[in-house]
Amino acid sequence: MLVIGLGLIGGSLARSLKQGGYCAHVVGHGYRDVSLKRGVELGVIDSYSLDLDEALEGVDMVVVGTPTLVANRVLAELLPRVDDSTVITDVASVKGSLVHAARETTADGSVPANFVPAHPIAGSERSGVDASQADLFVDHRVILTPVEETSAAALEAVRAMWEATGAEVVDMPVADHDAILAATSHLPHVLAYALVDALANSELSEDIFRFAAGGFRDFTRIASSDPVMWRDIALANRQELLNSIEMFSRHLDSLRRAVQEGDSDALHATFTAAKAARDEFLIGSKK
Amino acid sequence: MLVIGLGLIGGSLARSLKQGGYCAHVVGHGYRDVSLKRGVELGVIDSYSLDLDEALEGVDMVVVGTPTLVANRVLAELLPRVDDSTVITDVASVKGSLVHAARETTADGSVPANFVPAHPIAGSERSGVDASQADLFVDHRVILTPVEETSAAALEAVRAMWEATGAEVVDMPVADHDAILAATSHLPHVLAYALVDALANSELSEDIFRFAAGGFRDFTRIASSDPVMWRDIALANRQELLNSIEMFSRHLDSLRRAVQEGDSDALHATFTAAKAARDEFLIGSKK
Repeated sequence: MLVIGLGLIGGSLARSLKQGGYCAHVVGHGYRDVSLKRGVELGVIDSYSLDLDEALEGVDMVVVGTPTLVANRVLAELLPRVDDSTVITDVASVKGSLVHAARETTADGSVPANFVPAHPIAGSERSGVDASQADLFVDHRVILTPVEETSAAALEAVRAMWEATGAEVVDMPVADHDAILAATSHLPHVLAYALVDALANSELSEDIFRFAAGGFRDFTRIASSDPVMWRDIALANRQELLNSIEMFSRHLDSLRRAVQEGDSDALHATFTAAKAARDEFLIGSKK
Repeated sequence: MLVIGLGLIGGSLARSLKQGGYCAHVVGHGYRDVSLKRGVELGVIDSYSLDLDEALEGVDMVVVGTPTLVANRVLAELLPRVDDSTVITDVASVKGSLVHAARETTADGSVPANFVPAHPIAGSERSGVDASQADLFVDHRVILTPVEETSAAALEAVRAMWEATGAEVVDMPVADHDAILAATSHLPHVLAYALVDALANSELSEDIFRFAAGGFRDFTRIASSDPVMWRDIALANRQELLNSIEMFSRHLDSLRRAVQEGDSDALHATFTAAKAARDEFLIGSKK
C-alpha cells in the first residue's frame, strides 16, 4: 500500500493495517520528506519516496491522505499514472469537489473505475503523523461514496481495508455526504471559529477567556483544528456550507427574537426539543 | 447553614462543606419535599423543613441554590425575614436581575447589606441533587459581585465559604459579570440549542445525527442542559445575551461572506486567529 500525504489519518490507517497484519509493507510519498522521515522513525511506514513513479512501483492500493484541496491536485497527478489494477482511494472531508477533480483526469469526463471516494469520520484537533494512532477508526464510521462508474471490485477492496481497522463502513451518494458533513461538521467548525474570533476581538476578551469554563472548552474544542485544512474544506464544500449557515442563521434568528420579546414558551419549546434530539443522538451515536 | 433549592450546585456545596468539616449541620428548604428527602437519604443535608421560618431558625448563612428566576422570588420572600446577622448569598447565573430583585425588597431601593450576589462557574449538563459531588468546585472560579451597600463582613463570610470548597474566588462588578457570562456561557448555549434544533428539523435529520462524530458531540454537549434553567437565564440576562448574539452574528456573517466569495485569505486569517486565541485560553484556563 502507498500512502500519499502522511498525516493523522493516513498515519493512523498505516499503523492500524500494519499492526493488524492486513498490510505487510506501507510506502509513503509526499512533496517534502519531513513527515515521511518521521513516519519511518515511528514505524508508521516502512519506506518512502519523493518520486511518485518510484513510490507507485508494485503497489495495488493507493490512499490519498492529503487534505481536501491538495487531494484534488494529487488525484490529477496520480490517476493518469496507474492502470485499472491499482485501486485509488482518499480520506478527504468533501467528496463532490474530489469527484469533479477525478472527472477532469479523463478525456470523456467519466470518473475512473478504480477510484473510490471515501471519508473516515474520525479526527482530532491534533494533526500530523506524530498524533497518529492505530485505534483511531475503531467504532467510527467510514463513508464510501461510489459513483456510477466505480468498479465493484475496487469498492470492495476499499471496504475490506477500512473494515480491517475496526470501522463501520457505509455507502452513500456524494451529494448526501457533502450535505450531511456540512451540517454536522463543517458548520459547527465555522460556528466555533466565529465564536472564538468574536470573543477574542471583544473589549472584554481578557476576562472572557479568564472566566470561561468547561462548557466553553468543549464547545470551542473544534476551533483548535488546523486552519489550513478547514479553510480548504470550507472552500471545497462551499455551496453546502452556505446552505447550512443559512439554515442555522434562520434558527438563531428565531431564538434571538424569542429572547428579545421575552417569549418564555418559545424558548422553552426550542430548548426542550433540542435537548431531546441531542440526548437521542447520543444513544445511537458512534464515537 | 440553610440551602434553599437543593439541586446540583446547592447539593455539591453542602456536600463539600460537610465533608471538609467547614459546616456541621446543613438544613434544606424548598417548595416540594422530593429533592429534600433525597438529600437527607444521600447525606447531602442533615434535615429539612418546608416552612421557611422554621428552616431559618438559628441559621447564620443562607444559600439560595435555585435557578435564576426562582432565585428572584426566593430573595423577595427571604430578605424581609432575616436581620443583618444572617448572611444571604446565591448561585444564580445572572446577577443584574437578582440585584434588582434585592432592591425591590427594601423601602429605599437599596440592596440589603447582608446579601452577597455570587456565581460559582461550575456545572454540568446533569442536574439535581443526585448529580451533586463534593469536589465540583475544586479549581473552579466563583465570582462575587458585591455592590456599594454590601457589608465587608458578609462579603468575607461568603468568600471564606467558597474558598473552603477549593474554589478560586474573585470579585467583579455586576455588569461585567453579566456581559462576560453572556459571551462565554449564555451565548454558546443558545448557539448549541439553535444548531441542534436546526439539524433536528432538517430533511436529512436522521442521517445527520447518524453520521455526527465526536466533534459534534462536544460541540453540542451544552444543548443537553436543563431547558427551564436556560430559558430563565436567557430571559434574566436578556440585553447582554442580545448584545452577544448580535456580536456573534456579525462575525458569522463575515465568515459567510468569505466562504461565498471564496476568500481563502480571509478564512485562513480568521481560523488561524481563532485557533491561537483558543489555544492560549487553554493554557490559562481553570477546569
